[in-house]
Amino acid sequence: MDIVDVTAFYEAIKNNNSFIITSHIDPDGDSIGSVLALTLALLKKDKKAVPVINDDIPKKYEFLSGSNLITKRISGNYDALVAVDSSDVERLGFREGLDRYANVIINIDHHKSNTNFGNLNIVDSNASSAGEIIYGLLDGEIEIDYDIALNIFTSIVTDTGSMRYSNTTSLSLRILADLVDKGVKPNYVSRQVFEKRSISSINLLKLALDTLELSADNKVASIYITKEMLEITGALEEDIDGIINYAREIEGVEVAVLFREKEESLTKVGFRSNEWMDVSKIAEKFNGGGHLRAAGCIMKVPLEKARKIVLNTVRMYIMEGFGERCN
Amino acid sequence: MDIVDVTAFYEAIKNNNSFIITSHIDPDGDSIGSVLALTLALLKKDKKAVPVINDDIPKKYEFLSGSNLITKRISGNYDALVAVDSSDVERLGFREGLDRYANVIINIDHHKSNTNFGNLNIVDSNASSAGEIIYGLLDGEIEIDYDIALNIFTSIVTDTGSMRYSNTTSLSLRILADLVDKGVKPNYVSRQVFEKRSISSINLLKLALDTLELSADNKVASIYITKEMLEITGALEEDIDGIINYAREIEGVEVAVLFREKEESLTKVGFRSNEWMDVSKIAEKFNGGGHLRAAGCIMKVPLEKARKIVLNTVRMYIMEGFGERCN
Repeated sequence: MDIVDVTAFYEAIKNNNSFIITSHIDPDGDSIGSVLALTLALLKKDKKAVPVINDDIPKKYEFLSGSNLITKRISGNYDALVAVDSSDVERLGFREGLDRYANVIINIDHHKSNTNFGNLNIVDSNASSAGEIIYGLLDGEIEIDYDIALNIFTSIVTDTGSMRYSNTTSLSLRILADLVDKGVKPNYVSRQVFEKRSISSINLLKLALDTLELSADNKVASIYITKEMLEITGALEEDIDGIINYAREIEGVEVAVLFREKEESLTKVGFRSNEWMDVSKIAEKFNGGGHLRAAGCIMKVPLEKARKIVLNTVRMYIMEGFGERCN
Repeated sequence: MDIVDVTAFYEAIKNNNSFIITSHIDPDGDSIGSVLALTLALLKKDKKAVPVINDDIPKKYEFLSGSNLITKRISGNYDALVAVDSSDVERLGFREGLDRYANVIINIDHHKSNTNFGNLNIVDSNASSAGEIIYGLLDGEIEIDYDIALNIFTSIVTDTGSMRYSNTTSLSLRILADLVDKGVKPNYVSRQVFEKRSISSINLLKLALDTLELSADNKVASIYITKEMLEITGALEEDIDGIINYAREIEGVEVAVLFREKEESLTKVGFRSNEWMDVSKIAEKFNGGGHLRAAGCIMKVPLEKARKIVLNTVRMYIMEGFGERCN
């Protein structure tokens, strides 16, 4: 752990009564699962706990216990705000400074780039997921029942890509085993999270694959998705999840990039790498961030311009073997 | 375990010096990994051990330690033959009876349908994979080094579909964790086994997805692949693997069918189901077979005719709720 004060965490829980539990916009399995696991644990401790995510929750996560409790916007004052899985304050998507919502800010995260924005910071960049940290905090302190287990299992399994990503450790696997012993069915979670396709999502996939482009000796693969593609197919934002892997999984590819046209002059860029490139360094060049093998940024330029700038940079990094130097 | 005599197994290893280690034709990650793990363990014990698989080994498994030792056909006489992951003798693909190759036959398997064909039978249908049983036999008896660990990890991860199938237990996950502690990198194995795409395979996927068709209230989804599609894209037979899942994973679909034009009047049909339909019953109608959730058959009719006949039958079964009756 980079910065840890676990005793202070338990003290903060003990000494406060009302909590906002929140996470980043663009919610995923880890952020939602972690928020809900901690919320359910606090409710079990007879605390007031409100899960807040300032964005839409993808439909596929509605199976998670407690998902019906999630509130989109909140006002009023709480004793404490716990942010999980968010490397900075901006990603939380609140309209005002966090101190307008709560007196104590607790920051629980596994991103290396975390800005330690809390009054209390529990940041462990060796953890596979925020859910893994939450498990460590709860284990032995509260009975982890099926509902909490389901949320933590989903956190870990989504952030490790079902054991496929390099952040999968033996600790992650032992925690998953413990959660299976609490009644979680791995195939049930997989089906909810990875295996629900709509016809629209298949049509989007086909259009996206048509844009697949290789460069830099086939070491770089990129795909783009326009607003129009979503409109034509009727696909949802969440249907974009995973499409970047088609680029990443091509033999010989080291870096995969997915460009998503959000607005006419707003492009979201996702990066993945396979073996050696530290893509968080590339994302940081464009004021983004993330992990060694998965990172992202948002650029205030049109799709075409973003593609040109980013792909040039990626190619330069690839040619210079940049990642090898900084690993 | 259904039938177990572990002490007799250790005795048999101790009292014999030369071993054939073998498994079924149509080899997969579990059969190859289990054969190699046991072979390497016996070699460490200074036994003579030859891994024999009477079929071609898919290229993607060449990364497994010891894969270069695998022999395709064997003659001569050995003290013992150990068959792993094979429910009967026929699946092993030997030309003659097993007693022509060895004096003692040891049968290690996890299929419920195992015929107990060995002199010694270690059959545990609760095990996720043959590799999991091999781990149980070796653990504590021999130092499981990286090479053995890599093989067992690959066995378990392929047979559990990377935690996605219902056979994933907490024991499987704990064994995987132990193997990670021996140095196995989960993302490395996943990349070898699940994540190698070629551009040809992506082009084949696009053509195949264009044929996707839903019927019977969207409960049946089918895809077909013609010889021409393979020719146009340059994709390989193995690139067809997994395409049926795009049909199976569509929300609401119960039965997915993939038609593969082999020759002008020869069509291979694969079936998958999600929740309740016993697709082995459908495959049996056409002289095929398989499991509850995965089955297949080969029909001596052109693709179009096969589609018509099979889809009509599937729809009839779906409408009658056939699977519910026979589960």
